[in-house]
Amino acid sequence: MTTSTDEFQSPLLEKAVTELSRLPGIGRRTALRLALHLLRRELDDAEALGNAIVALRRDIRYCSVCHNISETDICPICASPARDRSVVCVVESVRDVMSIERTGQFRGLYHVLGGVISPMDGITPDQLEIDSLVDRIASGEVKEIILGLSATMEGDTTCFYIYRKVAGVNPDIKVSQLARGMAVGNDLEYTDEITLGRSIMQRTLFSDSFTL
Amino acid sequence: MTTSTDEFQSPLLEKAVTELSRLPGIGRRTALRLALHLLRRELDDAEALGNAIVALRRDIRYCSVCHNISETDICPICASPARDRSVVCVVESVRDVMSIERTGQFRGLYHVLGGVISPMDGITPDQLEIDSLVDRIASGEVKEIILGLSATMEGDTTCFYIYRKVAGVNPDIKVSQLARGMAVGNDLEYTDEITLGRSIMQRTLFSDSFTL
Repeated sequence: MTTSTDEFQSPLLEKAVTELSRLPGIGRRTALRLALHLLRRELDDAEALGNAIVALRRDIRYCSVCHNISETDICPICASPARDRSVVCVVESVRDVMSIERTGQFRGLYHVLGGVISPMDGITPDQLEIDSLVDRIASGEVKEIILGLSATMEGDTTCFYIYRKVAGVNPDIKVSQLARGMAVGNDLEYTDEITLGRSIMQRTLFSDSFTL
Repeated sequence: MTTSTDEFQSPLLEKAVTELSRLPGIGRRTALRLALHLLRRELDDAEALGNAIVALRRDIRYCSVCHNISETDICPICASPARDRSVVCVVESVRDVMSIERTGQFRGLYHVLGGVISPMDGITPDQLEIDSLVDRIASGEVKEIILGLSATMEGDTTCFYIYRKVAGVNPDIKVSQLARGMAVGNDLEYTDEITLGRSIMQRTLFSDSFTL
């Protein structure tokens, strides 16, 4: 068996493969395929990719208010005068902010927790941005908190924890959560019984569906 | 619908996602996942990856003899006094050189064609390193050419084309090809009939299997 440097014929190729294979979901075979592809591209293309990766990590920060990614101290959403400052949607990650923004249905602000409470994974409330959320609502500007977390055991636990914390600081604040029900376009036949049960309990007026 | 810059909250993130998604097999969703992963890593890690990509493309060249990747004009295999210069294995790609080197069964030199003849994909013989192979054998140092191409229609066409060319220049040269047969570890039941037919026609002496 030859050593891995011999295998790649080139320390530069081996280094690139090693670095690429540290990315999630990319094994050494895929990393080699990507590296050989880059070898066939123009130098400009490789530089654009390499520089974009460095700039991404070096120049992106987190918003000091909502902890979303930002290139400035306060992110564009928190800084926008067009957003409704009385509603804060609490989400797990930056990716969730993007998902909700894509719907075009929400004009309030966000609060990114950085995860959900998960004793199994060793994630406790103090590792999340929960205290900063409580500080944020203490001012009284926020009238409603929407809990936009995953419909999982960990998500529900985190919702309940935040609900207790928030109610302790400001009992008048409205705390809501995302509707649970059948996914739009899904067959009833293939909807699981727990979701279906929730859909029945939380049924909405049919007339509301066309006045929305 | 918001624009994609709005969607990503950051032009830097969008740029990184765009560049990553130009890699083969990486869509925008995967690119976003990789970019968000890089955001959580140390700056050193992002720099190591970015610099490795640039160095790979900038500093790796192709061997002027065999067209394998190299960091010098002549690759380490062609330059090695330990290799048998009388045997040249003709392969399609750099990746195939790696595969054969991993077997540890070949001590000759290589010649990387850069593809196979494929009229369907518009790849003609003049786009491949076939003329340079013919030049290489003209010196008389090479006694045997091993055609190490894929067992496909395009591979077989290319083998035949090279065989004709080589025989025209030097009729004394031995031209061999990789053995076709059952993959080691495979069940006979699941071997296709064409491969099985070849395995019967090209059967080898059992006593050879333990004298190799």
